[in-house]
Amino acid sequence: MQMVDLINKKKYNQALTREEIKFIIDGYTKGEIPDYQMSAFLMAVYFNDMTAEESTALAMAMRDSGEVLDLSDIEGTKVDKHSTGGVGDKVSIVLAPLVAHLGAKLAKMSGRGLGHTGGTIDKLESIPGFNVVLPLEQFKKQVFDLGCAIVGQSGDIAPADKVIYALRDVTATVDSMPLIASSIMSKKLASGADAIVLDVKVGSGAFMKTLKDAEELSRIMVDIGKKAGKKVTAILTGMEEPLGHKIGNALEIYESVQTLEGNGPEDLTQVVSVISGHLLKHAGVVKSYKEGYKLSYDTLRNGSALNKFYEFVSAQGGDINFLKNKDEILTKTNTYEIKSTQDGFLEKVDALNFGIAAMKLGAGRATKDDVINLFVGIDLHKKIGDPVKKGEVICTIYHEDKGLKDAIEIINNSYVIGNKKIKIDLIKETIQ
Amino acid sequence: MQMVDLINKKKYNQALTREEIKFIIDGYTKGEIPDYQMSAFLMAVYFNDMTAEESTALAMAMRDSGEVLDLSDIEGTKVDKHSTGGVGDKVSIVLAPLVAHLGAKLAKMSGRGLGHTGGTIDKLESIPGFNVVLPLEQFKKQVFDLGCAIVGQSGDIAPADKVIYALRDVTATVDSMPLIASSIMSKKLASGADAIVLDVKVGSGAFMKTLKDAEELSRIMVDIGKKAGKKVTAILTGMEEPLGHKIGNALEIYESVQTLEGNGPEDLTQVVSVISGHLLKHAGVVKSYKEGYKLSYDTLRNGSALNKFYEFVSAQGGDINFLKNKDEILTKTNTYEIKSTQDGFLEKVDALNFGIAAMKLGAGRATKDDVINLFVGIDLHKKIGDPVKKGEVICTIYHEDKGLKDAIEIINNSYVIGNKKIKIDLIKETIQ
Repeated sequence: MQMVDLINKKKYNQALTREEIKFIIDGYTKGEIPDYQMSAFLMAVYFNDMTAEESTALAMAMRDSGEVLDLSDIEGTKVDKHSTGGVGDKVSIVLAPLVAHLGAKLAKMSGRGLGHTGGTIDKLESIPGFNVVLPLEQFKKQVFDLGCAIVGQSGDIAPADKVIYALRDVTATVDSMPLIASSIMSKKLASGADAIVLDVKVGSGAFMKTLKDAEELSRIMVDIGKKAGKKVTAILTGMEEPLGHKIGNALEIYESVQTLEGNGPEDLTQVVSVISGHLLKHAGVVKSYKEGYKLSYDTLRNGSALNKFYEFVSAQGGDINFLKNKDEILTKTNTYEIKSTQDGFLEKVDALNFGIAAMKLGAGRATKDDVINLFVGIDLHKKIGDPVKKGEVICTIYHEDKGLKDAIEIINNSYVIGNKKIKIDLIKETIQ
Repeated sequence: MQMVDLINKKKYNQALTREEIKFIIDGYTKGEIPDYQMSAFLMAVYFNDMTAEESTALAMAMRDSGEVLDLSDIEGTKVDKHSTGGVGDKVSIVLAPLVAHLGAKLAKMSGRGLGHTGGTIDKLESIPGFNVVLPLEQFKKQVFDLGCAIVGQSGDIAPADKVIYALRDVTATVDSMPLIASSIMSKKLASGADAIVLDVKVGSGAFMKTLKDAEELSRIMVDIGKKAGKKVTAILTGMEEPLGHKIGNALEIYESVQTLEGNGPEDLTQVVSVISGHLLKHAGVVKSYKEGYKLSYDTLRNGSALNKFYEFVSAQGGDINFLKNKDEILTKTNTYEIKSTQDGFLEKVDALNFGIAAMKLGAGRATKDDVINLFVGIDLHKKIGDPVKKGEVICTIYHEDKGLKDAIEIINNSYVIGNKKIKIDLIKETIQ
């Protein structure tokens, strides 16, 4: 088999076999296929796409390039969840103790933030002592004993995806649906769960800007998961505005506690409940998604899963006093308030720009090597559709001077107050 | 300027500016842009093509990557000719002395053969003593004094094309019209001629298999040439069957002498006359192409340009006794005759396969490092449309055992004798 022939085959829009795709991934991972052939191949994939079979073969070949977690000694259905990334997305942090409290087993590997989106691992690390690196046995034991664990993604998981992603990043081949889908699914398939709910974000703050793109990506991922023998559901959720109110690492821990206490923002509470509803159904805890959703929503609103969050944080070494005294988080930095200059309704909030503003403040990374500030961020007090009065505070910036000027300018250009009361569809579609 | 942004731009089908294309070519030639970005870019060009302006900018940037010959101290219009490559194509060898004899100045750089097509330089080197490497001043002096010179292409000409071609070869990005056109034209533009006739071969033995592809390539090349200030004409000529009768280096020298003596095959004589006709018109030697064609054809048929061929070969150190005793060429190897097993007409000859058969015998190179045998080859006695009798010799193989079995098998599967008398259009189109 010659790589140049396989590039040609894809270029001429012929589907590659599973063996051919395995040859490419194995060869590239071992350094036998050079970067310049791989990048030409990736560009051909960008233009000619992949069939469902090809995407699945690609995800599986990348999965098999490294360690595949075996969670089979934990009884029952192990569940996992993935978000394609948004602004203010603290869903996993609320979800993990919720589903554990309700009887499911969630074993999750998460990533760090890059660009305008934050990462669950960074957010959890704002809790003093929280340990995101657990040996596999301890990780499994915690899932078994407690019902949930969240760790950073190991470098041993899907190493092929890592090198291919780095190449895509510099060869303008990131935005290819089968490449995005197989990249995500290779890691999910390697993480050992039996059921996966994919939260595919749609809107300005998401990687998928349109419903059509999000649907396409979702269908490919669900297809890959099913072909690989997993139970998979994709939820398409809105990312026109940030999720919840708070953006920034410790600020999002604050809001997660608030939500588990029963006082969370309605949008966040709903998204967590939808995902939880599907996971509980897949895990056999409930008979229907509807039942799962109602159970999840009620549990969040009555605050009964909060204690599980404390147990989960404690188990991974985190200081629960940080959570119990969460108001102190709001006193760690300087604040700056942005006030409305008119009466009306909040018509538009550009989630992408709010994410970028938070990054400028130091809450996120522009490049992988940037050091983040765990306490800076933005508290957006209003949601789209909310009435706003002239002089009322729209958002509070938590800052340590760095990037403040940029952030104010970006924020001022990123929301619109008008006279229309707009309603946004939060849960746009379910694909399974 | 960032290469990744330029790849993206081409990927999204936006035209690149001249400066952007220059940035890519300069950066790649200097090693500042890595292979993996260049190959992704080339694949994006394959899919999204280039505008005439982009192709011209590409050809010019590649031209400017190395030496650009200045022939301006030779008075008058300097002419050049390029063939996209075929089987039995000895046109340049006949053309050079012909146009020189008729008063034009032809300054030509040629290549070596690769794959199923031969190279003019290899063919000329079968003449003992013939020197294909001349210092620039001597090259120019010979064009000035004698009217023609043919040398091997210098490595200093369009080095960017050389490295890009090597990358295209291993990344399945060879068959892109703007890349083929700009590769050819970069070298032609660097060679210093004022007028160029492009012989674009069409058919099984050519790189362009269909008239449509040949037309497209021709239009792009003519456009590039004109935008770069040259007089350019493209002739689309048939390569369904080999040109003339003889395939192989010394065998083609034999046929070139024969043609200059006035006894050449009709198809070769016509193609040379058509190209010569246009070149003489561009050079101002004749008033119309028609006049140029007639003058060229008559000159070939009356043998009066033969002496100029002797002068040209002598000037470059070649032994003209080799030409005068050309029948000895046919005695240098063993021969094997393939005879017809039926009566009828020759309906089909697969030029590609005859080229491959000649390569197997040692007349051509499968890879750049192969050593060729100058005397082996094939003499195809019949042309498409010729009547054939059972037992009559269709072709004679000149061989030294190597590859004979393969060649016989290939040839036996590469011609058809039937009952239709087919006529092929030799000159298919003229684009200018």
